[in-house]
Amino acid sequence: MSRVVILSGGVGGAKLVAGFAELLAPEELTVIVNTGDDFTHWGLRIAPDLDTVMYTLAGLAHSEQGWGLEGDRFTALAMVERYGGPSWFRLGDRDLATHLVRSEALRAGATLTAVTARLCAALGVGQRLLPMCDEPRRTVFDTTTHGALSFQEYFVRHRFQPVLRSIRFEGAQEPTEAVLAALAEAQLVVFAPSNPYVSIDPIVTLRGVREVLERRRVVAVSPIVRGAALKGAAAKMMLELGEDPSAAAVARRYRGLVDLLVVEEGDGFAADELGVQVHETSTIMRTLADKRRLAAEVLERGEDQCG
Amino acid sequence: MSRVVILSGGVGGAKLVAGFAELLAPEELTVIVNTGDDFTHWGLRIAPDLDTVMYTLAGLAHSEQGWGLEGDRFTALAMVERYGGPSWFRLGDRDLATHLVRSEALRAGATLTAVTARLCAALGVGQRLLPMCDEPRRTVFDTTTHGALSFQEYFVRHRFQPVLRSIRFEGAQEPTEAVLAALAEAQLVVFAPSNPYVSIDPIVTLRGVREVLERRRVVAVSPIVRGAALKGAAAKMMLELGEDPSAAAVARRYRGLVDLLVVEEGDGFAADELGVQVHETSTIMRTLADKRRLAAEVLERGEDQCG
Repeated sequence: MSRVVILSGGVGGAKLVAGFAELLAPEELTVIVNTGDDFTHWGLRIAPDLDTVMYTLAGLAHSEQGWGLEGDRFTALAMVERYGGPSWFRLGDRDLATHLVRSEALRAGATLTAVTARLCAALGVGQRLLPMCDEPRRTVFDTTTHGALSFQEYFVRHRFQPVLRSIRFEGAQEPTEAVLAALAEAQLVVFAPSNPYVSIDPIVTLRGVREVLERRRVVAVSPIVRGAALKGAAAKMMLELGEDPSAAAVARRYRGLVDLLVVEEGDGFAADELGVQVHETSTIMRTLADKRRLAAEVLERGEDQCG
Repeated sequence: MSRVVILSGGVGGAKLVAGFAELLAPEELTVIVNTGDDFTHWGLRIAPDLDTVMYTLAGLAHSEQGWGLEGDRFTALAMVERYGGPSWFRLGDRDLATHLVRSEALRAGATLTAVTARLCAALGVGQRLLPMCDEPRRTVFDTTTHGALSFQEYFVRHRFQPVLRSIRFEGAQEPTEAVLAALAEAQLVVFAPSNPYVSIDPIVTLRGVREVLERRRVVAVSPIVRGAALKGAAAKMMLELGEDPSAAAVARRYRGLVDLLVVEEGDGFAADELGVQVHETSTIMRTLADKRRLAAEVLERGEDQCG
């Protein structure tokens, strides 16, 4: 039984995960990771959020760019480019090994949950990393300008410039049993400051997840700081989907799921009618000390105030 | 119509191919390459002989080891190893790109012939490189010590130490139309000094190849020099299969196919009863000048004496 279960996407989420990893023993921490942006590229099964969290916990993540491995090189990519192959998704040489081993294991019949556990064990990651589901569940962006786009087309290829009409998820609707069990047993569930629409929604809309979350203490950290997303496209998405980009909009999005919303200093708002408490603090995580401090505050407030 | 069509395996064959590439305009040279040692590894389709010849003609081949690219690194391999994946076959980072692009194109329905042409064009290789067939045809080694072994198991994993009982080819029996057409139109066919059993036999035993070769001028270069293979396992194979390792045994192997056998100085023998002429010269190719000189001699003697 994990003391804390974090729901996370990639970059922003991994920062808070790193903070919790500083505070808790490995066996006290489980991370449920979005797989809605997984895709197949060069014939390889790529799970960007899983890898970002895994590399972060293994101490291998690139310290600045938020994806890939520190010091990785791109010689295979340059050669693929020379062959006229697609090079818009930047796969590093060492990163490639992750996708090769995972793809081979999946072809041999392993579940994504099992192969993730194997990769983590090999990298010495003691925390439990759970993909939200084993079967593909794909985020699809319906845009007014470019029609329906896959996650990587929208984010990487078009740098989230197409105008959104709606977001939907295609494919699997079932979380894994491991995900449901981890949530059912968690002392505290944390929504990392990931994009609510494309990192947290794909998880909480899986069958049975909302029901189990309603019975748990849940603290969310807002990814919106003073009307903008710290990283990524959340604020632009909110505007295009008819929301004001604010911590309050995040609270509305998480209504019924979250007991406490942690927001940036000065972003507080009266949220009594949403049934959610609001706690202001510094949510910007630049250093490991920032991450650890925010994680400690989430843990303290979560264990104090919820339930 | 090519002036010269070379049948080739990997390392030794690629040397003579390099010599011919020095002599002839690109459009005058076609190479038909053995694919009997192709295999699938890390989920990738690998064609070692095709790649060795392609890298050689592109000027990218490693100058000493006989496989892979000069200056290639092995960071992906080291990471696969860290994950506990198989690392006995040494795939370099840039080499990986070749296999990734090829595998993806094959999955998308391209023929091996078509994807080889595409890879060659991207690398500026103007000569025509033809895989012997588009469908898998696998060399199988029946051994007295290790049972049936695939090519890579026998050669790479067990370093050709298991004792051979016989060699057979499983799978496709049809060459491509491009192979048959190239042979039918060739002014001169050359068997490179590749292993007769596992580089040349897989090609000449394809349906219809022997018949078309019987109507063509064919010069073979013996890979056996003073009773030993210059590189690789040909001499050991011959012994285990009941032949003395000699240029004469190579002539017997190629009986009915070859008009002229080029052998090392001092390796000459009376071969009238085999219906083959023998020409002695220096066949050892260390430098590019060696390769060019041997190719020139094969060309001259082939065009002079055959037919």
